[in-house]
Amino acid sequence: MKEDVKGITAKKDKDFSEWYTQVIQKAELADIRFGIQGFIVHQSWGFRIIRKIYEYLEKEIEKDNHEPFLFPISVKEKDLMREKEHAGFNPEVFWVSEAGDKKIEERFALRPTGEAQIYPIYSLWIRSYKDLPFKGYQSRISVFRNEKTTRPFLRGREFLFFESHDVFSTNEDALKQVKKDLKISKKVIYNIFKIPFLFFKRPQWDKFKGAVNTFTPDTLMPDGKRNQLASTHDLGQNFSKAFNIKFIDKDEKEKYAWQTCFGPGIWRIMAATIGIHGDDKGLILPFKIAPIQIMIIPINFSKNNISKDKIEKRCVELSKELKNFRVKIDYSNQSPGFKYNYWDLRGVPIRLEIGPKELESNSITLIKRTDGQRFSIKIENLKKEILNHSKLLNEKIKKNANDYFKNKIKETQSFEELVKIIHNYKGFIKVPFCSVDLDGEKCSGILKEKTNGGNVCGTIYPKEDRLKKDDKCIVCGKKARNIVYIAKSY
Amino acid sequence: MKEDVKGITAKKDKDFSEWYTQVIQKAELADIRFGIQGFIVHQSWGFRIIRKIYEYLEKEIEKDNHEPFLFPISVKEKDLMREKEHAGFNPEVFWVSEAGDKKIEERFALRPTGEAQIYPIYSLWIRSYKDLPFKGYQSRISVFRNEKTTRPFLRGREFLFFESHDVFSTNEDALKQVKKDLKISKKVIYNIFKIPFLFFKRPQWDKFKGAVNTFTPDTLMPDGKRNQLASTHDLGQNFSKAFNIKFIDKDEKEKYAWQTCFGPGIWRIMAATIGIHGDDKGLILPFKIAPIQIMIIPINFSKNNISKDKIEKRCVELSKELKNFRVKIDYSNQSPGFKYNYWDLRGVPIRLEIGPKELESNSITLIKRTDGQRFSIKIENLKKEILNHSKLLNEKIKKNANDYFKNKIKETQSFEELVKIIHNYKGFIKVPFCSVDLDGEKCSGILKEKTNGGNVCGTIYPKEDRLKKDDKCIVCGKKARNIVYIAKSY
Repeated sequence: MKEDVKGITAKKDKDFSEWYTQVIQKAELADIRFGIQGFIVHQSWGFRIIRKIYEYLEKEIEKDNHEPFLFPISVKEKDLMREKEHAGFNPEVFWVSEAGDKKIEERFALRPTGEAQIYPIYSLWIRSYKDLPFKGYQSRISVFRNEKTTRPFLRGREFLFFESHDVFSTNEDALKQVKKDLKISKKVIYNIFKIPFLFFKRPQWDKFKGAVNTFTPDTLMPDGKRNQLASTHDLGQNFSKAFNIKFIDKDEKEKYAWQTCFGPGIWRIMAATIGIHGDDKGLILPFKIAPIQIMIIPINFSKNNISKDKIEKRCVELSKELKNFRVKIDYSNQSPGFKYNYWDLRGVPIRLEIGPKELESNSITLIKRTDGQRFSIKIENLKKEILNHSKLLNEKIKKNANDYFKNKIKETQSFEELVKIIHNYKGFIKVPFCSVDLDGEKCSGILKEKTNGGNVCGTIYPKEDRLKKDDKCIVCGKKARNIVYIAKSY
Repeated sequence: MKEDVKGITAKKDKDFSEWYTQVIQKAELADIRFGIQGFIVHQSWGFRIIRKIYEYLEKEIEKDNHEPFLFPISVKEKDLMREKEHAGFNPEVFWVSEAGDKKIEERFALRPTGEAQIYPIYSLWIRSYKDLPFKGYQSRISVFRNEKTTRPFLRGREFLFFESHDVFSTNEDALKQVKKDLKISKKVIYNIFKIPFLFFKRPQWDKFKGAVNTFTPDTLMPDGKRNQLASTHDLGQNFSKAFNIKFIDKDEKEKYAWQTCFGPGIWRIMAATIGIHGDDKGLILPFKIAPIQIMIIPINFSKNNISKDKIEKRCVELSKELKNFRVKIDYSNQSPGFKYNYWDLRGVPIRLEIGPKELESNSITLIKRTDGQRFSIKIENLKKEILNHSKLLNEKIKKNANDYFKNKIKETQSFEELVKIIHNYKGFIKVPFCSVDLDGEKCSGILKEKTNGGNVCGTIYPKEDRLKKDDKCIVCGKKARNIVYIAKSY
């Protein structure tokens, strides 16, 4: 598949949308030619990055005592209707109603998310306080929603999913889990994937259907749009009442359980990794998540075969020494320049070059994807230098991402200014607002209309910004109750 | 979920079917109460065993240079029709034809298997001999077939899948891959999971729809039924012609590619693991695949709390020392006897008991699931002894499985005898047959009818049994061309 793909032609700063599309195609992350709208093929390079997202999430969620399970792809129609608000998903639901050339007696839905399929079974599994907390999750699955517009890794009719579903005997334990979920988000999304975010409590009118409250870590894409990276829901007893999840407590009384659920956006983390770290040459990947961490490139300038053989022999020796890393040698017949561009486009963190010069001097030339600077390394220091440079690379990616993300918050108290800047401002606009819990829907509607899609992300959680004494809602002018963040959304 | 589940009440030898159902329920492998026929919930204990099947397969298939990818769940109707024989799947296909309350413009199918969705994309990816061999696979996915009868881990409407799809420039390379796939089957299914099998070339009338030839490793379940553990298909150029997978060869001519595909039966390997290794107490698991390898049980006979604390402290020390294994301590308030049965039912390979006696003598009591014998182990030898006993356990499981599988082949040359014994004989019956390649369908039909479902597995591959000079087809009496194996099928 190594076609003569030329590099990215779009500039990330000037035309992010085109740049993003080109990176996905040219780095072979996904093939959008599958032919059914909103369904994409995850190609090997992209899929191996996504597998890392899954692996780190699985590791962290199991450390937090979640048991893995796997539910079917299907949901019963009557279960989808059981929680009234949650049934709001139904217009987006795909139905399987035929098999072969016959109608199915009882049609079933492709799950839009797991609650309606998992909780009827939880009501069978959970009987006593001894069963609680009960923490389960499923990973490496898909969900299905008939979305109007679709975009790879941002919105699809089939998209990759991960969900944990926890059941507690008290509301207090449930609320503690929300904070644990935030910690897991931070560990994986920020520490490993180096994606900075703000953690919001979402407004009541934009929470998960059926939840008491929804919490989301949100980052910003270079086009200024909010990218919701995960969501954690405090479900209270809404679902346990709808799905009859009860337990006998220590006092021998039967009670409805308290629930939370957590869903990192696998695709959204991928989209942020592409969009935030990448540059005009293509992807940039933190060392831990790169499918290939080190690419060794033999430089065969001379036509002298003995030298070529010697160089390739050295490359093999080095790759053996580096066997604890994900390392490859590019033996292809392409020119060194072609190879540099090819692997830079795919974001390989470290490139090692071995030519006649290096052979002679027992050295290696090391280049990091982040800055392209050339380092001459003594062969005996190789492993140490790889560790050192991989650390420097990670630090650079993190610093770049943090620099990009800071100063992305602008304050205003004027609706006029907000309306004026929201089209061009690539960040969060922080404003006083009447309330995210009460009559916000009206003000939010006006805001959405006047700003052409401006979206109230919510309030910072857990430490909400403090209001000043005279803060007035930027839309209706009544006394403000919250400082909220507004951004454009996908 | 630790209900007061009593042990298995059915005897494996006397009523395998009931025993199998009870193990699945009581060891919490799968919950069949999901409410849509043929769709089951994979519970944590079962799912963690299945995850091991996936992990080992992924490791081996990637060692054989396959790249992971992920295709959507959907297939276009017109792609399903492209290979005529393969379109034979269609009566089993589920269709998504509605979304919300509207008809979808172009309905799509839930994939019954990957060919029809993958090969249209392969025809875009593969251009030149330089792209070949192209080896890709997808793992941890489901496929969907509207089967009439369903049984957990044996046949489902949704069942777990793994498939590799390889493309070559020559038929020779493709046929070599068939043998590599056999090797991978052997490594995972036999070496790791300890499931013995015979490798068959299937008869022409029972091959994969659209393949030139199908090869399968088959084992036998204790009820005497053939369990097909995987299948490898030599696709020849059938699919490359139907899906237009062409490449420019070194001679600059455009040619159709040669293809193979390989699909280990994830569920079938699970079913064999349960059925072949288990005993009247429940599951027996090889050490490498057990979700928990070592269960530490504190024995608190005395009411004296100091002793209890000391015992639990010792348990924690031991579990720390064994941290490279999957080890747990059962602190629950149940009696030791309850705990033994509980973990024996789930197949935990090694149990360690620590009571006042062990505390005093600086020893540990070690019991293996396979024989229940008690060993007193010096604390300083713990790790060494664990390694030693886990090896003995694996050897015992392997030996039991091999003993079970050998002598499961009976020869006969009389159709009368075959008809008489096939109901009761729990194994393969080896008979001369007219031909698996030619007019077998007629003889096979008669055989099926007269034996109430007897099924020709095929001929042994790669070394087919030799015919004797006068061997006559057991059904029609004409000159036999093959020695074939017959067994009942699920």
